[in-house]
Amino acid sequence: MIETSARVTIATVIEEFVREELSAENAHIAAAVAEMLDAGGKHLRPRITMLSSRACESGAAEDAVLAAYMEMIHVATLIHDDVVDNADVRRGVQSTNSAFGNRFSVLAGDYLFSWVFKKVTQSYPQPVPTILAAMLAEICNGEVRQLRAEGNADLPESAYAEIIGKKTAELFAACAECGAIVAVAAKRAHSGADVRDMQRVKALRAYGWSFGMAFQVRDDLLDAIADEGALGKPAGSDLREKKVTLPLINALRSGGPPVRAAVDRLFAHDDAGAPEAENDLAAVVEAIRNGHAVELTIASIERYASAAETALLALAPSEARDELSALARSLTEIGRP
Amino acid sequence: MIETSARVTIATVIEEFVREELSAENAHIAAAVAEMLDAGGKHLRPRITMLSSRACESGAAEDAVLAAYMEMIHVATLIHDDVVDNADVRRGVQSTNSAFGNRFSVLAGDYLFSWVFKKVTQSYPQPVPTILAAMLAEICNGEVRQLRAEGNADLPESAYAEIIGKKTAELFAACAECGAIVAVAAKRAHSGADVRDMQRVKALRAYGWSFGMAFQVRDDLLDAIADEGALGKPAGSDLREKKVTLPLINALRSGGPPVRAAVDRLFAHDDAGAPEAENDLAAVVEAIRNGHAVELTIASIERYASAAETALLALAPSEARDELSALARSLTEIGRP
Repeated sequence: MIETSARVTIATVIEEFVREELSAENAHIAAAVAEMLDAGGKHLRPRITMLSSRACESGAAEDAVLAAYMEMIHVATLIHDDVVDNADVRRGVQSTNSAFGNRFSVLAGDYLFSWVFKKVTQSYPQPVPTILAAMLAEICNGEVRQLRAEGNADLPESAYAEIIGKKTAELFAACAECGAIVAVAAKRAHSGADVRDMQRVKALRAYGWSFGMAFQVRDDLLDAIADEGALGKPAGSDLREKKVTLPLINALRSGGPPVRAAVDRLFAHDDAGAPEAENDLAAVVEAIRNGHAVELTIASIERYASAAETALLALAPSEARDELSALARSLTEIGRP
Repeated sequence: MIETSARVTIATVIEEFVREELSAENAHIAAAVAEMLDAGGKHLRPRITMLSSRACESGAAEDAVLAAYMEMIHVATLIHDDVVDNADVRRGVQSTNSAFGNRFSVLAGDYLFSWVFKKVTQSYPQPVPTILAAMLAEICNGEVRQLRAEGNADLPESAYAEIIGKKTAELFAACAECGAIVAVAAKRAHSGADVRDMQRVKALRAYGWSFGMAFQVRDDLLDAIADEGALGKPAGSDLREKKVTLPLINALRSGGPPVRAAVDRLFAHDDAGAPEAENDLAAVVEAIRNGHAVELTIASIERYASAAETALLALAPSEARDELSALARSLTEIGRP
C-alpha cells in the first residue's frame, strides 16, 4: 500500500528518536516502544501527515519529525490498548510478572504521551498542540463509548459511526490537518495564513477524517471475513470481545430474526471466547459472510473513500494529492475469502 | 493543615469543572473523576499553585482555574495508580467487571490528561504547557524506576531520593513554578519578565520541589509508623508491595545484619501480602519503629522542609510567603505512634 522507500524513511526517523532521545531518558520505556514499532504497521499516519504537507503547499518540505510524533501517539494508544487485551488474555491466575507488565504498560503509554506533548509544545505553535490534545481526548471518548456498547445488539449504525469517528478517524484527521498547518506556517511565516490556506487545511482534515472512517470499517470487515493467516490474529476477535461493528449491524439488519437469535446466544455467554461459545461464534461469522452484510459494508467503505477523494478536489493537482487519493482508493480493495 | 474556606473554594472550582465541562463531553469519565475528588485529599497542589502566585507578585490574582488543572493532573495519576493497585487486590480470579474497571481506569486517566492539556494549551502561553508535559514525563520515569526498585534491599538513599523527586516533587515544583509564572505574566503583559521576576519563579520552583520531597518522605514514614485509623489504609502497605522507602533504608543502615535478615525473609515471599508473610512484615515494621530509623527519617523531612523555607527567603515578605512557609513547617509535625 505504501512505497517501500518512504516506509523505510519514516521507520528510520522513529527508530532514531527511540534510540537517541527516548533511550537517554528512560531505557526501559524506550525498549517497550521500540518493540511496538518493530511489530510492524504500515505507518499510514506519518505517511498521511507528510503527504498532506506537500499536497497543501507545492514544494513544502515534509516534516518527518511531526510525522514521527503522530506515529508515537498511535503507538502510545496501542500500548494502553494492550492493558485491555492483557486483562483478557490472562484471565484466571495473574502472575506477578503479568501484573508488572500491566503496570508498566500504563506508565510506558503515559510517558510516551507526555514526552510527545513536551516536544510538540516546544517545537510547534498553536493550534498544533491543542489539536493533538483534543484529538487524544476524543480517542478516549470513543474507546469509553465502545466499552459501554459491548454486547449491545441494538447498537444503531449512527452510534457505531460516532465511536469509530472518535477512536480512529480523529487521529487521521489530525495527521492531515497538522501536516497541512505546518506547511502553511512554513510558507507564510511572515504574511500569516489567508482564507485559501485555511480552506486547504480544512479540506485535508476532511480527507483524513473520511480516510480514517474507511480504514476502520475495512478493519472491522476484515476481522469478520479474513482468514487468520492474513489477519495475524484469530478471525472474529471483535465478536469474541462482544464488539458490535458495522458488518454485524449489517448482518442483523439484512438477516432478520435468525441472525438476531444467533447473536443473542453468542452475547449471552459470560465469556464469548470460551470453547462452548465457539459454535455460536461460528454461526454469527457465517451469517456475516453469507448474507448481504459484506456487500453493504463494502459499500460503506466505498462511500467514505469517495468522500476522502472528493475532499482532495479543493487542492491543486499534485503528485502528493494523487498519492493521498490512491491511498484512500486502496482501502476499497477487499479480497473476499 | 489548610484553612477550611480556601479548601472549599478549590473544591468548588474543581467540582464546577467536573459538572459543567467534563460532564458535557463524557459523563462516565466525569463521574469517575468526581468520585476521586470526593474521596478527599487536602488539595495541597492547587493551594501551593495559588499561594505561589501571590507570593511571587504582591496583589496577584489567584488563578483557581490553573490550580484546578494541577489537581486534575494529580487525580489522573491517581486513577492510573489504581490500575496498579487493582491488579494487586484482585489477584487470582479476574471478573469481567473488574477487568472493565481496569480498562475504564486507563481510559479515564488518559481522558483527564488530554482534556487538561487541551485546556492548558488553549489558555496558557509557553512555557506552562511544556512544564506540565515534562513534569508528567518525569512522574512516569519515577514510577517506572520505583517498579524496578521493588524488593531491592540494597537500594541506596540517593536512588530513593531520585525516585521520589520524579514521582512526587516534580508536580509540587511545577505547581509553584506555574503559579509564579502566570502571576508574572499577568503583571508584565507588556514589558516582559525581567531577571528579578525569573529569580522569584526559580525560588518558588525550588520551594515546591523541596516541599514535595518532605511531603513524600513524611508519607513514607507514616506508612510505616502510623496506625491504620489515621492512615485510612493498612499500615506497612509499602513493605507489602516491597517498596523500598527511606524509613526502611534507615532501618537497614542503623539496624545491621538482624534487620537485613528480616527484610530478606520478607522480600523472599512471592507475595509479601500473603498471610504467611505477616510475621516477617511485623518484624520489619518493629525494626523501623524501635531503632533509629524514625529519628533519621524525621531529620530528612526537617532538612527538606528547611530547604523549602530557605528558598522562600528570595521573595519579599508577604502573607502568602508566610503561609507557604507554615505549610512546609507543618510537614515536620509527626505524631509518633
